Amino acid sequence: MKENYWEIIEKAVESVPAIKRTGLKAVELRERYAKLLMPLEGNINHVGMMYAGSLFALGEMTGGAIYCVSLDYTKFYPIVKEVHIKFIRPALTDVTTTVTMTPEEAKRLTRETLENGKADFDLKVELKDANDEVVTIVQGTYQLRPFN
Amino acid sequence: MKENYWEIIEKAVESVPAIKRTGLKAVELRERYAKLLMPLEGNINHVGMMYAGSLFALGEMTGGAIYCVSLDYTKFYPIVKEVHIKFIRPALTDVTTTVTMTPEEAKRLTRETLENGKADFDLKVELKDANDEVVTIVQGTYQLRPFN
Repeated sequence: MKENYWEIIEKAVESVPAIKRTGLKAVELRERYAKLLMPLEGNINHVGMMYAGSLFALGEMTGGAIYCVSLDYTKFYPIVKEVHIKFIRPALTDVTTTVTMTPEEAKRLTRETLENGKADFDLKVELKDANDEVVTIVQGTYQLRPFN
Repeated sequence: MKENYWEIIEKAVESVPAIKRTGLKAVELRERYAKLLMPLEGNINHVGMMYAGSLFALGEMTGGAIYCVSLDYTKFYPIVKEVHIKFIRPALTDVTTTVTMTPEEAKRLTRETLENGKADFDLKVELKDANDEVVTIVQGTYQLRPFN
């Protein structure tokens, strides 16, 4: 597959209007690595910090983003099965997070999905504010599935 | 406190633009009981079902909604500490959920917040589709705090 990562991530965001509305965007992309950003603007809650749901959107999108830059998006698609999110401290700036996948994990997912019609993967990411403080921890379980 | 629940819930939704954008609304409100609805329209994901983040928004809002109809919103405000969300089956219709609080729990939270400056409460809610099937289970831990 050819690595037009920016285009594929943009399409992924565009395909879910509720994500698009948050202003979430990729800020760094390379093979098996993504850095995403959620702007504070438009995502403030009733007490002036970033809304829990916008932090969730950022954390959950790591599953889609790492899929886009690690797996064959012409053959597979991801869904999310379960997420645990822990809010550590108030997020008062834009928030970023990074996600990676090893080549071995990408190979395992590809092989298992072709063999079994599905394969689960777990991610744990830290969401950080502009001072590099962890504001939120997100653990997700996702499942890769083949297009019919 | 006087029970203008519809007005206070509307203000709560308006106070978080990212929630407002989803179209989430209350459909039943009475003392210590709320039923909330997330419309499918505007909340569809890349595979045609309701987006995980919109289901999160609905589940997480139960903490704010039950606070509005159970506790003194002129004295206290809630924050969310932690959420676990499990996606059981695809949501292909509008999704609703109900949340309740016992009088004893409301009294405990009021007393502890006045005494200790904070009090935690847990909620577990089922999100259901139009066929009354459970699509998602959300467990949240919230904290009540006093206004200064």
